[in-house]
Amino acid sequence: MKKVALILSGCGVYDGSEIHETTMAMLALSKNEIEYECFAPNIEQYHVINHLNGDVTDEKRNVLVESARIARGDIKDTKELNVVDFAGLLLPGGFGAAKNLSDYAFKSENFTVNEEIANIIRTFHSSKKPIAALCIAPVLIAKVLGAKVTIGNDKTTANIITSVGANHIDKEYHEVSVDEKNLIVTNPCYMLASNIYQVSLGADAAVAAMLGLMKK
Amino acid sequence: MKKVALILSGCGVYDGSEIHETTMAMLALSKNEIEYECFAPNIEQYHVINHLNGDVTDEKRNVLVESARIARGDIKDTKELNVVDFAGLLLPGGFGAAKNLSDYAFKSENFTVNEEIANIIRTFHSSKKPIAALCIAPVLIAKVLGAKVTIGNDKTTANIITSVGANHIDKEYHEVSVDEKNLIVTNPCYMLASNIYQVSLGADAAVAAMLGLMKK
Repeated sequence: MKKVALILSGCGVYDGSEIHETTMAMLALSKNEIEYECFAPNIEQYHVINHLNGDVTDEKRNVLVESARIARGDIKDTKELNVVDFAGLLLPGGFGAAKNLSDYAFKSENFTVNEEIANIIRTFHSSKKPIAALCIAPVLIAKVLGAKVTIGNDKTTANIITSVGANHIDKEYHEVSVDEKNLIVTNPCYMLASNIYQVSLGADAAVAAMLGLMKK
Repeated sequence: MKKVALILSGCGVYDGSEIHETTMAMLALSKNEIEYECFAPNIEQYHVINHLNGDVTDEKRNVLVESARIARGDIKDTKELNVVDFAGLLLPGGFGAAKNLSDYAFKSENFTVNEEIANIIRTFHSSKKPIAALCIAPVLIAKVLGAKVTIGNDKTTANIITSVGANHIDKEYHEVSVDEKNLIVTNPCYMLASNIYQVSLGADAAVAAMLGLMKK
């Protein structure tokens, strides 16, 4: 039985995992009868955003505890992620990837990736197991592996991806970029999608491409 | 253009809207090219549950502010919900329906529904516009309207539904109960579903039945 590891980064587009992208990825896996297990780092969120008005609040929240909301409690610390148990890795988007799993949102081309997450990405890569990343999450893959990724058609991000030694490929919301050599699948999701149905088409395409790479 | 109002009750199965049911309902509407607008009451949550370990925390969170996470910020206070703007109403499940929109989780058969929410339900009903409710949310409809609802096959809840003057209909996760007279569509979702794909089939069926009632 093939199983995919999902790495979440909180719960909500502005300070965590983008909820629609995460659930559409879960749905795409579930439809294909692929089991998934959710993980998140047991660290404090960079900050908490009031999603109604966009303000930064003075609250403190934990990435693993908030990610558990999307996972209905069925989630583990990324420290417990054993790559041998999984056939692939999937990272949904949301600012959590750029604020909690890395500091991309604040440091632009000088950003770094959380070392625990970087190690997981490296181990999946060296184990020749495919990695799918949605929306902004491809920047983490670009930084850690220098692989081809897609980031929609945002020129600033595209330039940064090039600057960290990776290639940027223009794709539409329902299309994926596949790096066959590095087994990387990327899709822009809400970078380009204008509704949840379009996000589901992107997640479906990413999961289909990931399954294709697993068979090789 | 037909538009549906969604009423959320927070963000997370144990103290708010069940995230998978909410996003699968959004997807079902979006796939059918039906616009939706999200609403939630501007009230404090009954409590905040740590979704990792199930503990009640000492945090305070607001139902509207947390619901905004699922809605990506695109949400309004239920006070602003004008029934004339909508062709139907949809209530996803999650304990938020039983803790924030009503006190069903605490008072069992003696529960009451938040007056604002009860008024919205009554107005959609008297305007002959269909109402769909998923998972535990049908108890609110049962209480306010005394209509036929489905709640999976949980006997305790079924008995309470009968005790408030409504009828309980057994249905499977992919089936809906349709009360043609009262224009009520209900589906058990995670009362019976064992994965997110099964939830999506329930949400698809509920939205399809709702659209059928809109045409009458």
